[in-house]
Amino acid sequence: MKIDIMTLFPEMFKETLGTSIIGNAIEKGIVDIEYTDIREFSNNKHNKVDDYPFGGGKGMLIKAEPVYEAVMSKKKESSKVIYLSPKGKVFNQDMAIELSKEEHLILVCGHYEGIDQRAIDLCIDQEISIGDYVLTGGELGAMVLSDAIIRLLPGVLSDDESFEIESHYNGLLEFPQYTRPRIFKDLKVPDILLSGNHKKIEEWRFKESIKATYKNRPDLLMNRKFTEEEKKVLDEIKNIRDEKK
Amino acid sequence: MKIDIMTLFPEMFKETLGTSIIGNAIEKGIVDIEYTDIREFSNNKHNKVDDYPFGGGKGMLIKAEPVYEAVMSKKKESSKVIYLSPKGKVFNQDMAIELSKEEHLILVCGHYEGIDQRAIDLCIDQEISIGDYVLTGGELGAMVLSDAIIRLLPGVLSDDESFEIESHYNGLLEFPQYTRPRIFKDLKVPDILLSGNHKKIEEWRFKESIKATYKNRPDLLMNRKFTEEEKKVLDEIKNIRDEKK
Repeated sequence: MKIDIMTLFPEMFKETLGTSIIGNAIEKGIVDIEYTDIREFSNNKHNKVDDYPFGGGKGMLIKAEPVYEAVMSKKKESSKVIYLSPKGKVFNQDMAIELSKEEHLILVCGHYEGIDQRAIDLCIDQEISIGDYVLTGGELGAMVLSDAIIRLLPGVLSDDESFEIESHYNGLLEFPQYTRPRIFKDLKVPDILLSGNHKKIEEWRFKESIKATYKNRPDLLMNRKFTEEEKKVLDEIKNIRDEKK
Repeated sequence: MKIDIMTLFPEMFKETLGTSIIGNAIEKGIVDIEYTDIREFSNNKHNKVDDYPFGGGKGMLIKAEPVYEAVMSKKKESSKVIYLSPKGKVFNQDMAIELSKEEHLILVCGHYEGIDQRAIDLCIDQEISIGDYVLTGGELGAMVLSDAIIRLLPGVLSDDESFEIESHYNGLLEFPQYTRPRIFKDLKVPDILLSGNHKKIEEWRFKESIKATYKNRPDLLMNRKFTEEEKKVLDEIKNIRDEKK
């Protein structure tokens, strides 16, 4: 996969996407990330790329031309061009999976109050937001997309790190995990995890997943279709909660 | 404000949070960010901080002790300790506003399959997720939180960049914005924005905000309480859409 990132701040990315798992993926040649400085496409001698919005309002906008020219300098038939924007559809794991099948992504980072709408109309395929919060620019969004997508590419995660568990518990939060030592600050690892009884461990983990989801993300349980076995676990948890009341 | 970030990869942060608006906030002394390498708190000579999960399963966990000791080395009475975790409540702008009132934040980044639950039980006040997607670690989450929170601190954004518009259109996506030139690649800036009629411009922008929200985030309109005037605009848009069908 090739990822081209269009930004006013290329220096923000290099260490962040050059480290650990993503850094290894680049080294192995699984993904190639290139940075294009939008400022290089300003058509004036002061390298100015922003201007005041028409119709009034605070802040500065990035002009259409430098964004458009930067994107067109890299765009090919097969490219998918994404603008990181608070106005976009909210990014999720299904979108990460879909985008991981693309050959060439161009990620466009706004900054300040955003970019001239005509650049969006002319060369952007999709607007994506990483969440319901306001950031100083699209750079962190481009890093989040890149990270979520690259880790899904074949060969990036070893078998040992693979995302089997994630998909197994699809739609639920993860159960608590423990490692050595068995006792830390008087807190013991739950006995069941040391029992060697894999069926019981699975059951315990599923229960704990449901509990965690109940507590922090009840919205995820709303549309879930439970199996008969899962329903039994759910009733058990509900009973325990009712008794406590 | 002081932010302490606990991570296995301190080098990932420096350029990202050292640039542009956040970099300026640090230079002005509005926020002080310090990085603590969790690995320095491993108690073995190989600096190993991870181990296999009890009960089986893929991947490696970060042990409780180095995380706990790293946090305790910085924790004060007034500290709020946040673990960036897919199991957490989903971050949003209201949470950013609340957290921007804190004096001292400690952000803990997991990596690999996460951290031993006992470290969470012993020293974490809150678990936060930045969205419904899987990342290689908590580092990008810590950057997103830092960026969203720091930009809200007094003195970080100039009056000109302030977030008045954001709150004015609270709960709706932003309207399209345009800057010079008036014509780019045959696309004209909408006449209304050049009219100087501020009331009409406001109306146009509100309509466009509703349209954008309809298209990309209909969920945001579900619980909104519309004013009478807003309802009229909404009906107009609905009529236009119905006519097109």
